[in-house]
Amino acid sequence: MSSVDGMRRLAVIDLGSNTVKLISLDFRPGHGYRHLDQLREVVRLSQGLQAGGPLQPKAVERALATLATFRAYCDATGTERIVATATSAVRDAADGAAFVERGRDQAGIELRVLSGEEEAAYAVLAVANSFAISDAVVMDLGGGSVQLSEMRARRSVRGESWPLGAVRASEGFLKSDPPTKKQLRRLRDAVRDTVGPWLDVMADADGTRAEPGALPWIGMGGTLRNLADAWQQRSGHPLELLHGYPLPAGGLATLTDELARIDRAGRAEVPGVSADRADIIVAGAVVLDEIVRLAGTDAIMVSGQGLREGVFYPELFPDQPHHLTVDVRDFAVRNLMRLYHLDEAHPERVTRLALQLFDALADRLGHGPAERELLAAAARVHDVGMAIDYYGHHRHGEYLVLARPLPGFDAREQTLIAAMVRYHRKGRPSAGSRAQLLVDGDEKRLRDLTGLLRIAEQLDRSKAGRVDSVACRVGPDVVVLEASCSGDARLELQEAARRSELLAQALGRTIEVVAAATKA
Amino acid sequence: MSSVDGMRRLAVIDLGSNTVKLISLDFRPGHGYRHLDQLREVVRLSQGLQAGGPLQPKAVERALATLATFRAYCDATGTERIVATATSAVRDAADGAAFVERGRDQAGIELRVLSGEEEAAYAVLAVANSFAISDAVVMDLGGGSVQLSEMRARRSVRGESWPLGAVRASEGFLKSDPPTKKQLRRLRDAVRDTVGPWLDVMADADGTRAEPGALPWIGMGGTLRNLADAWQQRSGHPLELLHGYPLPAGGLATLTDELARIDRAGRAEVPGVSADRADIIVAGAVVLDEIVRLAGTDAIMVSGQGLREGVFYPELFPDQPHHLTVDVRDFAVRNLMRLYHLDEAHPERVTRLALQLFDALADRLGHGPAERELLAAAARVHDVGMAIDYYGHHRHGEYLVLARPLPGFDAREQTLIAAMVRYHRKGRPSAGSRAQLLVDGDEKRLRDLTGLLRIAEQLDRSKAGRVDSVACRVGPDVVVLEASCSGDARLELQEAARRSELLAQALGRTIEVVAAATKA
Repeated sequence: MSSVDGMRRLAVIDLGSNTVKLISLDFRPGHGYRHLDQLREVVRLSQGLQAGGPLQPKAVERALATLATFRAYCDATGTERIVATATSAVRDAADGAAFVERGRDQAGIELRVLSGEEEAAYAVLAVANSFAISDAVVMDLGGGSVQLSEMRARRSVRGESWPLGAVRASEGFLKSDPPTKKQLRRLRDAVRDTVGPWLDVMADADGTRAEPGALPWIGMGGTLRNLADAWQQRSGHPLELLHGYPLPAGGLATLTDELARIDRAGRAEVPGVSADRADIIVAGAVVLDEIVRLAGTDAIMVSGQGLREGVFYPELFPDQPHHLTVDVRDFAVRNLMRLYHLDEAHPERVTRLALQLFDALADRLGHGPAERELLAAAARVHDVGMAIDYYGHHRHGEYLVLARPLPGFDAREQTLIAAMVRYHRKGRPSAGSRAQLLVDGDEKRLRDLTGLLRIAEQLDRSKAGRVDSVACRVGPDVVVLEASCSGDARLELQEAARRSELLAQALGRTIEVVAAATKA
Repeated sequence: MSSVDGMRRLAVIDLGSNTVKLISLDFRPGHGYRHLDQLREVVRLSQGLQAGGPLQPKAVERALATLATFRAYCDATGTERIVATATSAVRDAADGAAFVERGRDQAGIELRVLSGEEEAAYAVLAVANSFAISDAVVMDLGGGSVQLSEMRARRSVRGESWPLGAVRASEGFLKSDPPTKKQLRRLRDAVRDTVGPWLDVMADADGTRAEPGALPWIGMGGTLRNLADAWQQRSGHPLELLHGYPLPAGGLATLTDELARIDRAGRAEVPGVSADRADIIVAGAVVLDEIVRLAGTDAIMVSGQGLREGVFYPELFPDQPHHLTVDVRDFAVRNLMRLYHLDEAHPERVTRLALQLFDALADRLGHGPAERELLAAAARVHDVGMAIDYYGHHRHGEYLVLARPLPGFDAREQTLIAAMVRYHRKGRPSAGSRAQLLVDGDEKRLRDLTGLLRIAEQLDRSKAGRVDSVACRVGPDVVVLEASCSGDARLELQEAARRSELLAQALGRTIEVVAAATKA
């Protein structure tokens, strides 16, 4: 699905203190994108680096060799553009400028050294474009440092970073394995002493006085992803998606305590913990846990996007103010629709007809704007399963809706959309093994919205746009759906009537589908 | 995934005695195809039709209206070509030619009336291009008739049809609901009297004397699909795919007996039985069951392809002798690869490298040509999951391999290929919930082949074709993989060594990966 007109191929390389990563993306500016590949190499560029001192020659060689390999990968894969950034290790080294020059000359990679503020701004940009949230605290815990940013109106207004990343905190504080209580206490003290004042300032900010825990918290980095994965597995969370998942503070505390009591080999066996992170995860968990305690937040939401995606957004949204998508949820739905090359005309017509039915019947059914948005999302993607096969496309569509994060929607909403897609043709709507994510009233929501979608889909059965609009007349026993048609819409009216049972049950009335007028 | 260069859009319309169906396909001649949509309308064109008499006016009107609707659908969906066929109802009616004319003038559909021989030949062509089998008996049980064809060397050599389709047998024999024993016996007698002699002749054919039950039996039509679906569900078959599924004769007999004892409402509740087939399924089941008994075959394999696909193959393979694909399995694998727009260069290189490793180590591992073919298939499609997302593409790939029939491969083989795809990067290979489909030795097969695939994939890690070939030196403790490289293949060698554990276990030796020579 990568050979669409106007698609561009971009690689983002991020040279951190511990690892170098490359993500490869195909995108069309303003339109959509997809991840193609990821490369990752542990180079430990900051190894032996003293504050204000030079990079160590061996570390430099490892980093340059990896950059050269990544460059070769880009050349081989038809990558048109490479955006490469370097952060604290290069920024803080005395010979950072010389390293950048060698990167250009020896590896063919033009590194851009980000300031701390830029790094924070890109992390916030990633969050602002992948969460339907305006204000939050954004936390990025990497190998070298932990960084906090205050996001207001989708932009970073204040940020700071401390050298308490998982690698550095582990080396600096947790010298035993498992660590002693004293070591753990000292690390917690260090977090409190350094990060605490930043949180206090936020809480006292002029005009927008806020307890830090009153804002949503959004976190990124491998430590948090591992912990969230572990907690998802332990708590039987039925969706294998991390982006947007709220790791409860209690779960974080439980995992942190447990991991701190066992040694590295034991930690590597904990489901969710990567073997190559088992050595440093305790330190990262303790730092996260202490910050969450200080902030008093109930949960920290995982962002699967970070600095690399933040660097990518100016390429994706070059013309948007501050490179912010206007509506995160709307973009997510359209991106999903476009990923699978759907002809957009049919889903857009089904969406319009479904919303016309919704608007006419919402009061009677007891639904509002939240349900309307879910219905529109499901209508736009109801046919994505066709990308796999016509036969079983309702099942395939459910799979595709759940296969990737749907930024801006939570797990419950994504589950409802997937279930509508699954049952958009027939059957009794159900969230299946994901029913535990639903709340009171969702079963009715699902039935009612699916009933509307099912009729709207049939009103464009021939995909010829024969039904321009639909109106509803609600009588005591019968609801008449009046379709304004262009041309012969017999197939549409007949099929819509055939699939009206679910809506008829919801309304407690029989349904008739008639042509309001024939223009042609 | 439909907007690829050179793709053509075709609709095949099939006007049968009972229903009119349309399938819409995108295809590139000689290259690949996909189903896009299906329309189906029950028009009962043969209603009230007497042998040698005219079509009934109401039936004609229904058929023409449906054809006009289908024509409009084709116009709206950018269908470039329509191939429309009519079978027994039009063929046998006194005024069939006049009907064809009205179809052209009033509905814009040019119907081609197939002879019985042509109908059989297309059914056989569908089978020959979707089963890796040369000789078989092909049975097509529709609403009006049941048709048997003897396929030899992939072509129809003898065929006959009897008016014992599900609708006609139901109307003619099973007048009660549920039917009486006497009614059932008379239907069985009619099958024996008419179909029996055809089977006897086949058994006595010159030179190729064969008991009919010694040939594979392959069946098509909705009755068989419903029964096979019902039996899959009852027996806990773990794949939701019908094409290629062998319905056991005992299962068919059990279902036939059960369905004959309950009434229509009860039958509609049987999982697998469509509500709109519940009225006629007993007659269809009895006819199938009696033929299977007469033939003495153990099972009848379901073909998901039929007349419509048979009519399509001359479009897909215009230049092949008799429109036969050279190798059903190879085409199926390549079609799957191409469906998801994979760049073919990387999977072809991985396939070549995997087979080089296989050929060097197969004797030692105890594998032969069957395993070699499975490995090649998995190597070609190992990255299809990328079409959904890079993240989790191993899981998505497993889903995509299992989401559609893989013509020519049975459920066990498809399961093994999917499991290799799932574990091509890491983890312990497993068929998961499909393990029941495996046979003795498959766990080792899966581990060994996945071990080879995993290394081959890493030998093209940068997707730059840096490793041209790989050779193996097997020592008492160490196996050295010597990669002939063009250019800097450090990433490849390092990653291949990292992922060699599975193969090392299989060989009971450690594995080293080295560059044999650097040409560049």
